[in-house]
Amino acid sequence: MKLASLKRGGRDGTLVVVNRALTHCRAVPAIASTLQAALDDWHAIEPPLRQVYEALNSGAFTEADLFDPAECHSPLPRAYQWADGSAYVNHVELVRRARGAELPPEFWTDPLMYQGGSDSFVGPHDPIYALSEAWGIDLEAEVAVITGDVRMGATPEQCASAIRLLMLVNDVSLRNLIPAELSKGFGFLQSKAASAFSPVAVTPDELGSDWREGRVHRPLLVHLNGQLFGRPDAGTDMVFNFPQLLAHVTKTREVQAGSIIGSGTVSNKQGGLNGSSIDSGGVGYACLAEVRMYETIETGQPQTPFLKFGDTVKIEMVDHHGGSIFGAIEQRVQKYPG
Amino acid sequence: MKLASLKRGGRDGTLVVVNRALTHCRAVPAIASTLQAALDDWHAIEPPLRQVYEALNSGAFTEADLFDPAECHSPLPRAYQWADGSAYVNHVELVRRARGAELPPEFWTDPLMYQGGSDSFVGPHDPIYALSEAWGIDLEAEVAVITGDVRMGATPEQCASAIRLLMLVNDVSLRNLIPAELSKGFGFLQSKAASAFSPVAVTPDELGSDWREGRVHRPLLVHLNGQLFGRPDAGTDMVFNFPQLLAHVTKTREVQAGSIIGSGTVSNKQGGLNGSSIDSGGVGYACLAEVRMYETIETGQPQTPFLKFGDTVKIEMVDHHGGSIFGAIEQRVQKYPG
Repeated sequence: MKLASLKRGGRDGTLVVVNRALTHCRAVPAIASTLQAALDDWHAIEPPLRQVYEALNSGAFTEADLFDPAECHSPLPRAYQWADGSAYVNHVELVRRARGAELPPEFWTDPLMYQGGSDSFVGPHDPIYALSEAWGIDLEAEVAVITGDVRMGATPEQCASAIRLLMLVNDVSLRNLIPAELSKGFGFLQSKAASAFSPVAVTPDELGSDWREGRVHRPLLVHLNGQLFGRPDAGTDMVFNFPQLLAHVTKTREVQAGSIIGSGTVSNKQGGLNGSSIDSGGVGYACLAEVRMYETIETGQPQTPFLKFGDTVKIEMVDHHGGSIFGAIEQRVQKYPG
Repeated sequence: MKLASLKRGGRDGTLVVVNRALTHCRAVPAIASTLQAALDDWHAIEPPLRQVYEALNSGAFTEADLFDPAECHSPLPRAYQWADGSAYVNHVELVRRARGAELPPEFWTDPLMYQGGSDSFVGPHDPIYALSEAWGIDLEAEVAVITGDVRMGATPEQCASAIRLLMLVNDVSLRNLIPAELSKGFGFLQSKAASAFSPVAVTPDELGSDWREGRVHRPLLVHLNGQLFGRPDAGTDMVFNFPQLLAHVTKTREVQAGSIIGSGTVSNKQGGLNGSSIDSGGVGYACLAEVRMYETIETGQPQTPFLKFGDTVKIEMVDHHGGSIFGAIEQRVQKYPG
């Protein structure tokens, strides 16, 4: 099943069921007016939503609306929790190598996660707003899940059954603000901009066997200014799967329905700068920081600049027939209007 | 005006207007069914809420319900943002001194804040749940504000006008989990338990001249197991006021209505262990970690234990006539039921 939130209808938007081909949709006010409302009472609301989904796919609704991703907000325009992992430890290891530091061995067994701001996500086609290019604006293309309720101390197995929906996310990072902020010791606050999620969130069954062992086994396609920049496989080198990340969050407190758990920047192990770029047959990158780390390790300093005003980012994942699974995140970097 | 959320009515509870004396309340479904709904459209909804408040205070509603804080959830049972400061830099300095480290000078000019989990607060009379006493369970008594919408890059002056409500909060910290978690570099996630807020949130005008310069100038009364443990003044030694803390959050992204900004543990500068305890005429402490830091600095190691199952915490603030302003947070530490 595929769900989206149109921007109209207030801060939480209007829940619509979207057909598999992402061409048509239908609001379902008699079932649930917002995605959060559906998640709050998922066991009762999922079955009637699926009936609408099946009717949409079979063409039973002649009056279905055309689906336009540009009318979408993020599936949860605002959420009660956004906790993002760094499950692709390769990425973390590169960060450390680029600054000449060792990766602590426990990073392979204990997930690195941060609590993110979730009050004001932006839509998948909204600008990436910043007041200054000097912040070092970077994309981070990731996969994320939306959860149901989970008890404190839940096992990964219990967490697996609480995964309701999957999405893509652009977790925009402000690289030049990160070192000073993290050195203060309390994590990210100013150095993360508003995240944008894919137009559509899908139930795990939509991925068939590509959703297995708590991971999405498909390439994540990242374009910068219209050029393919990365196609790393989201199922490869994901050291901690989504149930493990969710279990990490539940260690000391309950998690409520509608919480979003992110994978961290998708990153595959590759043979250095020459082997990793798309041009040389590699899978490329899901963030600019990664190519800059290869450049730093091999040449002593980064070459590739961060995003500038006017640059565009596209993040998408397609099925085995080339059809978009989640719709595309398509954002342009813009100066925040004063 | 005083507002609360009764637990009945769903995950977001039921908004009630509470009279000044905290004896009576009234649900206002025709105006707003939840506090978040009121905040989402504050300029339209505040005036009719105030009419109800004035009628309650004048005794015009003979049919008003009795107000019972034990029926309350936190004013926002779940929120879209909870960002907590460490505005009482004295507390931060003590943390550093206790481990023999210097306080970086910029800590006096650049607020230290962390992004907290906000999906599952507990009610003011709910247990402090933990799976293990070995986590090092500690209270942190603080003041917090609930905001309206704020633009990116807002000035402290602009932020001041977006402060809608004030509350108290117990930001429960799991001290023995903090060092390992913070050493990973991404801030708090597992080392903060679910926070509880005071039964009632109040508009700043309720504090009269005690709300000035973005601070609450009243002692915060903290009891442990029925004994007064602290009465630090929330207006003293608060280096960054609430507008400054909120401006810090807005540097790189918009803030949406219903965001909660905390002050950090209230802490006044005092003359060492002998001068700081209530017994010796000091103002005491708003968390156990602080007395343990004095003990560490003066005797080489902490003496006071963290909270055990069965211990009780009470956090309250009273007006000049001894009346409770926000109602009391009253929690007992309990083992999370397996």
